[in-house]
Amino acid sequence: MTDKLQEYARLLVAFGVNVQRGQKLVITCAVDHAVFARACMAIAYERGCAEVILNWTDDDCARQRYLKADDKVFDVCPEWRVRYFTDYAKEGCAFLYLLSEDPQNLLGVDPGRIARATKSSGEALREYRELRMKNENAWTIGALASTKWAAMVFPDLPAAEAEALLWERIFAAVRVNGDGSAVEAWRAHAAKLKERVKILNDYRFKSLHYQNALGTDFVIELAENHLWEAGGDKTTGGVPFMPNLPTEEVFTAPKRGGGSGLIVASMPLSLHGNVIEGIRFVVRDGRIVEATAQKGEETLRNALAVDEGASYFGEIALVPYDSPISRSNTLYYETLFDENAACHFAFGEAYPTNIEGGADMSKDERIAAGLNDSIMHVDFMVGTADLSVVGTRADGTEVVVMQDGNFVF
Amino acid sequence: MTDKLQEYARLLVAFGVNVQRGQKLVITCAVDHAVFARACMAIAYERGCAEVILNWTDDDCARQRYLKADDKVFDVCPEWRVRYFTDYAKEGCAFLYLLSEDPQNLLGVDPGRIARATKSSGEALREYRELRMKNENAWTIGALASTKWAAMVFPDLPAAEAEALLWERIFAAVRVNGDGSAVEAWRAHAAKLKERVKILNDYRFKSLHYQNALGTDFVIELAENHLWEAGGDKTTGGVPFMPNLPTEEVFTAPKRGGGSGLIVASMPLSLHGNVIEGIRFVVRDGRIVEATAQKGEETLRNALAVDEGASYFGEIALVPYDSPISRSNTLYYETLFDENAACHFAFGEAYPTNIEGGADMSKDERIAAGLNDSIMHVDFMVGTADLSVVGTRADGTEVVVMQDGNFVF
Repeated sequence: MTDKLQEYARLLVAFGVNVQRGQKLVITCAVDHAVFARACMAIAYERGCAEVILNWTDDDCARQRYLKADDKVFDVCPEWRVRYFTDYAKEGCAFLYLLSEDPQNLLGVDPGRIARATKSSGEALREYRELRMKNENAWTIGALASTKWAAMVFPDLPAAEAEALLWERIFAAVRVNGDGSAVEAWRAHAAKLKERVKILNDYRFKSLHYQNALGTDFVIELAENHLWEAGGDKTTGGVPFMPNLPTEEVFTAPKRGGGSGLIVASMPLSLHGNVIEGIRFVVRDGRIVEATAQKGEETLRNALAVDEGASYFGEIALVPYDSPISRSNTLYYETLFDENAACHFAFGEAYPTNIEGGADMSKDERIAAGLNDSIMHVDFMVGTADLSVVGTRADGTEVVVMQDGNFVF
Repeated sequence: MTDKLQEYARLLVAFGVNVQRGQKLVITCAVDHAVFARACMAIAYERGCAEVILNWTDDDCARQRYLKADDKVFDVCPEWRVRYFTDYAKEGCAFLYLLSEDPQNLLGVDPGRIARATKSSGEALREYRELRMKNENAWTIGALASTKWAAMVFPDLPAAEAEALLWERIFAAVRVNGDGSAVEAWRAHAAKLKERVKILNDYRFKSLHYQNALGTDFVIELAENHLWEAGGDKTTGGVPFMPNLPTEEVFTAPKRGGGSGLIVASMPLSLHGNVIEGIRFVVRDGRIVEATAQKGEETLRNALAVDEGASYFGEIALVPYDSPISRSNTLYYETLFDENAACHFAFGEAYPTNIEGGADMSKDERIAAGLNDSIMHVDFMVGTADLSVVGTRADGTEVVVMQDGNFVF
């Protein structure tokens, strides 16, 4: 492995998920990236990790299953799978998710199968997901370049060049130069993001008003006692970790039921192995009441229909239009990257840590506090070069937060 | 994939494990052989398989875990793993095991860790193993050439040549020419093996006496109502399958507690990632009372000490010295191959199907009928070019079964 790959593996394990002595680590990784997974494993053990468990995935196997398996299997999440994720989460494992999927891997699959599988596994894995979303467990999502993903991002390049260029883009986005300076660069970057957090938290906004020429004209209400977060989290046990590498966002929780207007997505969304283009949401009282797309509409509608909470909002994230990933001027068809190039929202579950004391609340208390509950959490991008975001405070005064896609402060 | 690889995949899925419409299939395969696993999956779905589940393995991850994980993890088989194998077995899944391990993958690992892991997983997976051993489930073991395994078999060849040659040996052993004739060849071969079964069953031997110049001088008693088997099994549901590809053996169950003498193994034994050489067993009343080896003795002793039944015998298998695999004059360091080049025994669990009505008996009934019970089942080779095997019938008459390593009939 090259110096950059080694440094990237170390960044993910030692800084991203920050695996601790005596802790277990579950790595989700495609079989085609076994070399990288083995390197992550070696670094984890070097840090005194108790055990590394590999959750291998494979695009081709997933696609064959969705296309050809018996229809009944999509309504069931097997007990072993529930035990696997739930038990490791309860044991306090760290979770490292390495993404490399073909964004269109499930193109042509019956969207009903995907919807049923999403629902059955989402419901069965509810406890695991809740533990992770309230930061009982450290978790990090990173991306690995793969042939099919690279071909989608750089369709005009030969395969090998496309893959090499995608790796370079990943390294740039995660601040890996191969000289061992990545962690230091991330500490500096995180400190900058946390300055924005402080400013935004001090405003105590009631709502934000989004507008741009694409057609977005949308007011969203923020949860009372909301907290903006950025640049990394801490587990409930006090261990710092970085959930997303890269991350350029500052994010908080909307108030369920608060918000109205029209949202026009500014980028395609890769969801469940399909690319959804031209998304438009009409929102009334915080609920998506109309959802249309030029491509992949059924996948989108199915995702919103998984449960009641899926058509309410779970996250508000501000990303400057001049972020490094945005400046790369590339559509990645991978939310981990695209969401860090543009302001975005998520429909579905809210993060408990985005309101004061949320991580210590029961689910019912969180719902009472205005946080949305769902088995879904899907980010979609709205940021543009001309986006304006204007905040309204409790006393009705208005504050410009973003102008022409960038923070004014 | 080449024609030969395609034909091999088809042989394993459609003939070996003979997956049925509506049945599920669990494939165990190294991540480095994902291309082959995907091909097996496609063939299974083509046959109407309900779902193919991939149980991915990786030598490097296994070795790192054994060397570096916390000592406590080797005493526990996680609940998800028990549910995985037991639930799929109870559902009537077929199991395809694709072996490609480096025979020395765990060289240098603390043998105590291996012993404890063998015991904890063996005990936790008892129900799964029993279902499989009594043929509730169809199962097949096949082998895939890998770089490290090939380097061990052909140490004087460059890596690529060694791997290519090992593939050719595998294809020859499993009768794959790439012309689609493999299944037909296997049907003819199985019929020939079944002729031997008939002859041996008709003799109703009480015991067999093994002798050769290597030093083996050993009498082993056969279970009452024993059945010789060969050339494939049937599941309890009546579906034919071929547990091992290749297979050249005719095998039956010894009577627990019956047998005495000295056994000198004729080949090294690859067991739990270690190669054991120069094995000698002193046997009294069917029990291995002394076990020595020139190399890997601790691994051997640990295997025999896993439970009480591990030092008793579970299988008697006759293989002519002029079998095709034996004539290849190669040591494969993989029991699936080496056991088909030489007469062998197994210490540990006996197959219920090797006595009349055994598959319908409870465990206690099988033990009462003289079958050995253990979480282990380890084949080791004793056949040589000068081996003689003489059977004794109920009336005391002696019948020469093998002379100079080959059947006399």
